[in-house]
Amino acid sequence: MTLLADTVAAIRPLDAAAMAAAQARHATLTKPPGSLGSLEELGVRLAGLAGTCPPPLPQPATVAVFAGDHGVHDQGVSPWPQEVTAQMVANFLAGGAVVNAFARQAGAEVVVVDVGVAAPLPGTDPDTNADDGGDVAGAAAGAALGGQPRLVRANVRRGSADLSVGPALTRDEAIAALEVGIRLAGDLVDGGANCLITGDMGIGNTTPAAALIAAFTGAAAADVTGRGTGIDDETYGRKVAVVQRALALHRPDPADPVGVLAAVGGLEHAALAGFVLGAAARRVPVILDGVIADSAALAAAALAPDAVGAMVAGHRSAEPGASVALRHLGLAPLVDLGLRLGEGTGAVLAWPIVASAVRVLHDVATFDSAGVAEK
Amino acid sequence: MTLLADTVAAIRPLDAAAMAAAQARHATLTKPPGSLGSLEELGVRLAGLAGTCPPPLPQPATVAVFAGDHGVHDQGVSPWPQEVTAQMVANFLAGGAVVNAFARQAGAEVVVVDVGVAAPLPGTDPDTNADDGGDVAGAAAGAALGGQPRLVRANVRRGSADLSVGPALTRDEAIAALEVGIRLAGDLVDGGANCLITGDMGIGNTTPAAALIAAFTGAAAADVTGRGTGIDDETYGRKVAVVQRALALHRPDPADPVGVLAAVGGLEHAALAGFVLGAAARRVPVILDGVIADSAALAAAALAPDAVGAMVAGHRSAEPGASVALRHLGLAPLVDLGLRLGEGTGAVLAWPIVASAVRVLHDVATFDSAGVAEK
Repeated sequence: MTLLADTVAAIRPLDAAAMAAAQARHATLTKPPGSLGSLEELGVRLAGLAGTCPPPLPQPATVAVFAGDHGVHDQGVSPWPQEVTAQMVANFLAGGAVVNAFARQAGAEVVVVDVGVAAPLPGTDPDTNADDGGDVAGAAAGAALGGQPRLVRANVRRGSADLSVGPALTRDEAIAALEVGIRLAGDLVDGGANCLITGDMGIGNTTPAAALIAAFTGAAAADVTGRGTGIDDETYGRKVAVVQRALALHRPDPADPVGVLAAVGGLEHAALAGFVLGAAARRVPVILDGVIADSAALAAAALAPDAVGAMVAGHRSAEPGASVALRHLGLAPLVDLGLRLGEGTGAVLAWPIVASAVRVLHDVATFDSAGVAEK
Repeated sequence: MTLLADTVAAIRPLDAAAMAAAQARHATLTKPPGSLGSLEELGVRLAGLAGTCPPPLPQPATVAVFAGDHGVHDQGVSPWPQEVTAQMVANFLAGGAVVNAFARQAGAEVVVVDVGVAAPLPGTDPDTNADDGGDVAGAAAGAALGGQPRLVRANVRRGSADLSVGPALTRDEAIAALEVGIRLAGDLVDGGANCLITGDMGIGNTTPAAALIAAFTGAAAADVTGRGTGIDDETYGRKVAVVQRALALHRPDPADPVGVLAAVGGLEHAALAGFVLGAAARRVPVILDGVIADSAALAAAALAPDAVGAMVAGHRSAEPGASVALRHLGLAPLVDLGLRLGEGTGAVLAWPIVASAVRVLHDVATFDSAGVAEK
């Protein structure tokens, strides 16, 4: 079997006994029943994921920022030059981006993954941008030890092709990118991470995200296409038309998730789908950031429906496709503050809330132990 | 002048120059303009509060849990016995409540303030529950140094009177409770706190909160009365009728905020109003928890309208009065997860988000410094 097939096969349903134990434990704790709202359900679900109550505290955590470029940029769907993807990778590695600031505040580690950046990154073989095979594990170990942000060199291809005129990726490239994400998730868990956080960087990447969401949910292009980092009406109209054209051209079949990723996805989208699958296979929670992660999560859920049990919706991106995707997945976001930045920023903001939901099951006294009367 | 009058007089508007500097700084940082949604406005506002850009990181932070009892409990508005207030104070001091778990996760300190508990607490003079005058400062210093939760003995009265048959407090008692909150806020800031977080405990305290919100906003009792920790339909009907009766009896005048607190408030409500005023006077942000804090914030805003500039709405409590109060204050909550526990839990969850909003203004690179192209 391949790594992808093995991973999908390893993803199992939530453990009903552990969930029942968490539910029962919640009822004994010194708080009115149900008074923690959706955090109670979250704690119960994470017990089911871990197969034990209380589940492990979701720390340490690593945010993996998967970076890629997009041939569809040629269609004028973004006002930003493509070179910004590589420039922002350098910014992440220098610790200067918003995700670095949020991760520093929360105490999460940052790993940057070049899975599909077009421009050669410093220190990269300019002919290949190649992954040397050992970097994924090395970066994971470094991150778990609390080092500076690390670069994982796992470039599958120097940016996708233009999905509006042909497939974005070959099927093999989509699988290779999926497996980059799966491998990194496994390496991070091996390195001690008890929670994985999705991040992304890629100028133009909300266009493939919209196409993926339309393909997996059946929603209309206009209902899932947003203004990304901020575009004017003319660019927006062009972007919707590009998504419509891509869907008409490829007629992606949601029953073939790898085919959908290859036709209208992107390298970071595929890698994020793999990252989610890898987390689910290892039964570690994965906090979804915004619309890019949500589109990747749809691909992961199409490959392995039980993977949804490992997903925590970190926040509701301002992109309309994010809400469509989360509704399809049956996930309610923890934070809803109008963010539309990506990088993992919304998911990192949500991480302390996830940890708090779990910590209740560890730390809070029972009515009996605290000598508090019940109603 | 009195401490209350001095404090109100010290509360000034936000600093427009610092806000403009923060706005300008946001535009230079490596992120699309506006992409951090409401966190950008929050950072700008906290710059205005501090009078400098970037404003100080809002840490360390202390959550002050003000505890009191309520004569209106006699009307059967809560299914919980009144003794639970004191039992929960003991639970807070032992570190076993949800607010302790959340504060531990976030790294916030916990101070418990007996401003109006009916039952004598262990180690208290049973005749007076008296504040010995030195405890407020002592507890504040201990908390700032990272000790165990500390008890501040500042009991003004052993629970309020039944607001449905007469005034809950005398005017002097209301002022004394306000000043307990003001003093604690000042002592915590002197001890190094850069952020204050509101918490509360008091069986029956959502009834005076509803009455306060109705009095200050003009909303109908039925629109601001909720099910608190969870009550059945019969109890709920009784609770709404009690709030209506109290409003009809006292006809509280929102132009006399101390009179409103005395007529239909509670000791922890008044102390929380003072705590908010104290934070505003010291120009330190104060994160509001749920409906109790929101009702107290209305009193603080009625006393000093500019105090709203220091308030951060931590979360939207499931209690309907919370949304009415926040709308009146013009505040949007950071977290909305259906919590209805109180204790400060929702505000502690929001604290890392507040810190993240400020940290952006400290840590994030500019387009120039990072060499990232603009659109």
